[in-house]
Amino acid sequence: MNISLQDAQAAVQAAVEKSQSLNLKMNIAVVDSGANLVAFARMDGAWLGSIDIAIKKAKTARFFDMPTGDIGQLSQPGGSLYHIEHSNGGLISFPGGIPIKNGEGTIVGAIGVSGSTVEDDHTVAQAGVEALG
Amino acid sequence: MNISLQDAQAAVQAAVEKSQSLNLKMNIAVVDSGANLVAFARMDGAWLGSIDIAIKKAKTARFFDMPTGDIGQLSQPGGSLYHIEHSNGGLISFPGGIPIKNGEGTIVGAIGVSGSTVEDDHTVAQAGVEALG
Amino acid sequence: MNISLQDAQAAVQAAVEKSQSLNLKMNIAVVDSGANLVAFARMDGAWLGSIDIAIKKAKTARFFDMPTGDIGQLSQPGGSLYHIEHSNGGLISFPGGIPIKNGEGTIVGAIGVSGSTVEDDHTVAQAGVEALG
Amino acid sequence: MNISLQDAQAAVQAAVEKSQSLNLKMNIAVVDSGANLVAFARMDGAWLGSIDIAIKKAKTARFFDMPTGDIGQLSQPGGSLYHIEHSNGGLISFPGGIPIKNGEGTIVGAIGVSGSTVEDDHTVAQAGVEALG
Repeated sequence: MNISLQDAQAAVQAAVEKSQSLNLKMNIAVVDSGANLVAFARMDGAWLGSIDIAIKKAKTARFFDMPTGDIGQLSQPGGSLYHIEHSNGGLISFPGGIPIKNGEGTIVGAIGVSGSTVEDDHTVAQAGVEALG
Repeated sequence: MNISLQDAQAAVQAAVEKSQSLNLKMNIAVVDSGANLVAFARMDGAWLGSIDIAIKKAKTARFFDMPTGDIGQLSQPGGSLYHIEHSNGGLISFPGGIPIKNGEGTIVGAIGVSGSTVEDDHTVAQAGVEALG
Repeated sequence: MNISLQDAQAAVQAAVEKSQSLNLKMNIAVVDSGANLVAFARMDGAWLGSIDIAIKKAKTARFFDMPTGDIGQLSQPGGSLYHIEHSNGGLISFPGGIPIKNGEGTIVGAIGVSGSTVEDDHTVAQAGVEALG
Repeated sequence: MNISLQDAQAAVQAAVEKSQSLNLKMNIAVVDSGANLVAFARMDGAWLGSIDIAIKKAKTARFFDMPTGDIGQLSQPGGSLYHIEHSNGGLISFPGGIPIKNGEGTIVGAIGVSGSTVEDDHTVAQAGVEALG
């Protein structure tokens, strides 16, 4: 099962609107169940460096089927996944990437958001996920 | 001058509709004047390998401010730009990428389309450009 | 708005002169608002490994519109941006990269300096920025 | 023996002035005898895609101590160096890169120019070389 373009764009749009309500400028990416890009939007004036980070967050969330921040908990010095970020052409392991599930609980993709604090990034990503709830 | 997200999404949407009218499944990317990604959409069932090609076509069109197919005319064996595709992390030099200009004729970004024949790719990219006319 | 070659060269020249006054050998890079290289100079005898670092510092400063050292504060183990350096083909997150603004306060590019201690790198980068003040 | 920053900047400046006299917008790179970047300039409005090409031309000319166009003669289908462009992270094998020699005829670096036709690129690169004659 794969997220449709229509759903991916709905998630992006919800994230854009959440960002606007918080006065944030975000990069937002949605990947499908194969971790391949489906939809992307960079809001006017959002950080250029966050294009790649948003996409990598979405991919990372789907690569391991968990929020990106959970991976970062395990990738610290001494942690069990220390330096996992070196894999897959570069992971992002701080918050802002979240898997997307369909009505049956099957993961159909993931969203990644970057452009502010990691707390804001996660909040906006969550808004994208919930738009499909 | 940079293309806005609103205009980039309008170009993507016009390209999606053109694709639907032609019964095609496309990947569509829009970059800004700095050749950085602004908007992207992959239609349901479109080729996965065309994600990267659509993005590279958009970048290539802005890198050299001309339709991608023009570069391919010159990069053939014996041509003056033979193997230019090895630059910039990989160019795509066949049709489907077109610069986007504003009302004053200044290039503000570019669109890249991939998913069918290069003729179809170019036709759909052109529809995206014309939506901003 | 993009920095001109004339301004970029003036910033490089000011950084070279500051380096000479401090008896340092530096690599100095300036990128435009799209994070694309505009001007570069490596002083005689400067570290070869600092060519890439100077360029990456300039790009990183523009990618996130802040001095590179600010990012390094947040990317430490346990920090909110731990391992952000894996994005964008490799970031440099220690001091020596600074955004460049025009008279209206709009960011038009960034400078990156590498070749000595990070304190020296930052001092020389700052001299480049101030030359455009 | 290595080209000095002073000489590299003189070559760049001569190339810029030659470009202006021909009404061209060029990217100009100079590398040293180790094929490492010494100086770079992108003229206002020059192609973004030519940043990398100018640098690769300069490196290619020094990698093999000959004008880049000479390599392209041998890298055609059926030629003895077919697809040599795949080496060294990507070569550029069409004209615009020329080795730079000192007074004793020793190669001390190379210049690479990109932004127009390969004939123009070569002409401007030659102006850079001759400035050091």
